[in-house]
Amino acid sequence: MRQSIGIGLMGLGVVGGGVARALVERAEALSHQVGCPLRLRKILVRHPSKKRPFKVERRLLTTDPREILDDPEIDIVIEVIGGESPALQLIKEAMARGKHVVTANKEVIAKHGPELLSLAREKKVDILYEASVGGGIPLIAPFKQDLLANRISAIHAIINGTTNYILTRMAAEGLDFSSALREAQQRGYAKPNPANDIEGIDAAYKLAILATLAFHAQVHPEDVYHEGISRLSSHDFRYANELGYAIKLLGIAKEEDGSIEVRVHPVFIPEELLLAKVDGVYNAVQVEGDLVGRVIFYGEGAGALPTSSAVVADVIDLAQRINLGVSITPRLRLDPTKRIRPIWEIETRYYLRMITDDRPGVLAQISRILGDLQISISSVIQKESDISADVAEIVLMTYPAQEQAMQRALKQIEKLDVVKQISSFIRVED
Amino acid sequence: MRQSIGIGLMGLGVVGGGVARALVERAEALSHQVGCPLRLRKILVRHPSKKRPFKVERRLLTTDPREILDDPEIDIVIEVIGGESPALQLIKEAMARGKHVVTANKEVIAKHGPELLSLAREKKVDILYEASVGGGIPLIAPFKQDLLANRISAIHAIINGTTNYILTRMAAEGLDFSSALREAQQRGYAKPNPANDIEGIDAAYKLAILATLAFHAQVHPEDVYHEGISRLSSHDFRYANELGYAIKLLGIAKEEDGSIEVRVHPVFIPEELLLAKVDGVYNAVQVEGDLVGRVIFYGEGAGALPTSSAVVADVIDLAQRINLGVSITPRLRLDPTKRIRPIWEIETRYYLRMITDDRPGVLAQISRILGDLQISISSVIQKESDISADVAEIVLMTYPAQEQAMQRALKQIEKLDVVKQISSFIRVED
Repeated sequence: MRQSIGIGLMGLGVVGGGVARALVERAEALSHQVGCPLRLRKILVRHPSKKRPFKVERRLLTTDPREILDDPEIDIVIEVIGGESPALQLIKEAMARGKHVVTANKEVIAKHGPELLSLAREKKVDILYEASVGGGIPLIAPFKQDLLANRISAIHAIINGTTNYILTRMAAEGLDFSSALREAQQRGYAKPNPANDIEGIDAAYKLAILATLAFHAQVHPEDVYHEGISRLSSHDFRYANELGYAIKLLGIAKEEDGSIEVRVHPVFIPEELLLAKVDGVYNAVQVEGDLVGRVIFYGEGAGALPTSSAVVADVIDLAQRINLGVSITPRLRLDPTKRIRPIWEIETRYYLRMITDDRPGVLAQISRILGDLQISISSVIQKESDISADVAEIVLMTYPAQEQAMQRALKQIEKLDVVKQISSFIRVED
Repeated sequence: MRQSIGIGLMGLGVVGGGVARALVERAEALSHQVGCPLRLRKILVRHPSKKRPFKVERRLLTTDPREILDDPEIDIVIEVIGGESPALQLIKEAMARGKHVVTANKEVIAKHGPELLSLAREKKVDILYEASVGGGIPLIAPFKQDLLANRISAIHAIINGTTNYILTRMAAEGLDFSSALREAQQRGYAKPNPANDIEGIDAAYKLAILATLAFHAQVHPEDVYHEGISRLSSHDFRYANELGYAIKLLGIAKEEDGSIEVRVHPVFIPEELLLAKVDGVYNAVQVEGDLVGRVIFYGEGAGALPTSSAVVADVIDLAQRINLGVSITPRLRLDPTKRIRPIWEIETRYYLRMITDDRPGVLAQISRILGDLQISISSVIQKESDISADVAEIVLMTYPAQEQAMQRALKQIEKLDVVKQISSFIRVED
């Protein structure tokens, strides 16, 4: 049993502030849970004199990472700086000095997770990262423990709150994308430069982390095909509604016969699914396992408090084991034989919206192209056209088809004289 | 590191069969996860010659528990017999002989959980029971680990699939209770004697387990107020729909100022809540923590495969620790100062449906009784009455009021000459 366990905190932004407050304000409860007190010994910050929206003892602040790395009384380093550099280097240095690490850094874990786990094993420390995906929702632990008896076949995940908020507003109010984005920015749900969220990059990092755990195979962020939501129009939401679907930005990961598909893009999903009803900034991850069936984990995917819930839980877990003198060895067995399938190999259904000339035979030309590529149409909507403009809007849904065939079809359809524009191309997940 | 880890299985019914199959069929994957093979050495059954819907080696079967209890090569005993006796005794004897226990037994854990954890600590073994609530949905682990940094304020739980199926059918098809029950029985979702499920007893066991973990206080099953669903009528579903609510059998547990309320009964919940959209035999548990906010865990709450997912996960967890030579000490700190509030102290909103004489002044008499007891009415529906019968149906919703006052009001209303019958009295949770 230990006298106390020393904590070094790297980063005191939104999440770091939440973590610092939780460690200080609930010190007594934490001490009961761990079996000895947790002592927050140092906090790495860039600007010690910056005004912060919470009280923090000035003597804890330092601008020099060595004050944490070289402090032998610090057992656990919490990294909540975010971004790849210098966070990655600091994590490695902490582990090299025999310190356990808790991180909320999705970019570092997505890009370097397996490498960091190997280093951890070598240094006989552990690195935990529950907060890297889905804020306080338990998402890492289920794969590492609760669902371990299962063969996981699929993950369908709403793991970016910014885009889910924008899509919710577009669906509910008929807003166009740029108005919904502006509203999200005004409310602080989207950053001034929102590219990382709206292009699906943030979701791709998180999906890479989940897929690596679920399928026991190294999935790199660059393996994840991603497409953002900026091209969605209010027309698409109207048609989706008419057809009985919701539009969500989903992270989809599947394994079949040792081959893995991982992709992030807007998806039509049946409106009666529970995932279709996850609104606003909330996240939800649906996992399918051969024993457990379909389980869903739902909650706030970001923010100071939810994220600090996950960070502090990881700290408690490590501290309990340190206090019990348990040797800690992280396990992550990766199967190197599993293959990542490129996007053109997937098979799914598609929704297609086009602006065409308003004259007879247009649909026949489009159908012929699809038919020649073995793509069957499941439904067609053609709305009364704008007579003055002499154009029609045609919406198609297909049966499952090969992505490669579909992409070829799109190129051919685009070249048709009668087709003005392919306005939308959205995958469908039933 | 161990050569192998021995398993004894007690019970080979629906769940036991699923567990046996999982242990045998995925032996190789489990061996990788644990670091050494798991060996299923004996299975306790009542009738060794009974035909079973799966293959099992006859030489593994025994009718004598001592063949498991006295086998020094058995490290982990899995108890899936169900019911209090002889399961409780067998669990105790297994622990007394230094064996770890995994159980799916909600009744034993709800009634004797804290006592069994003390015994486990004394014998330096552990007892895990993830499968006792919500089938394969991770529900115990989140409280023991992932949400540990939080002060939990409330649980709202759909934890009985039978009743949720019946209520779903009543809501969707306008069925009355007995038809919906019959349908559930025909589909195998309700037992021939369904009392345990439809009276809320099963849910009360599960809620006692969750509340004990969430609030770190011993909640006995008899502390849980419970009311079943058999008195609900199709009228109630029509009014609920009209008022914007769904009707669910919820387990509700809350803590405020060191005092705990725990109750299972039908509830009106706003139809836009995600919980209101949990249909059929699915379970969902919503937890509110001061850091994490609102999280929901959703999935199949019963069945051979989902339950074996949880049982085997617990086995892996124990086996990993045994294999690493880690000393295992279960922790459950209970705060003896917390008080369970009796049902009459709760404060909530109410829905009330009455059959009354169809003449002026009826509503005035009812309102006066409520008003005198400080109960405010938030809405009233009075439907066109059945003129021939000379009766009216009045539906009331109240603002939050004390249960004690409400019960007093009900007694007085019942005595009014103009009131034929109080047909329904349902609590509302916003």
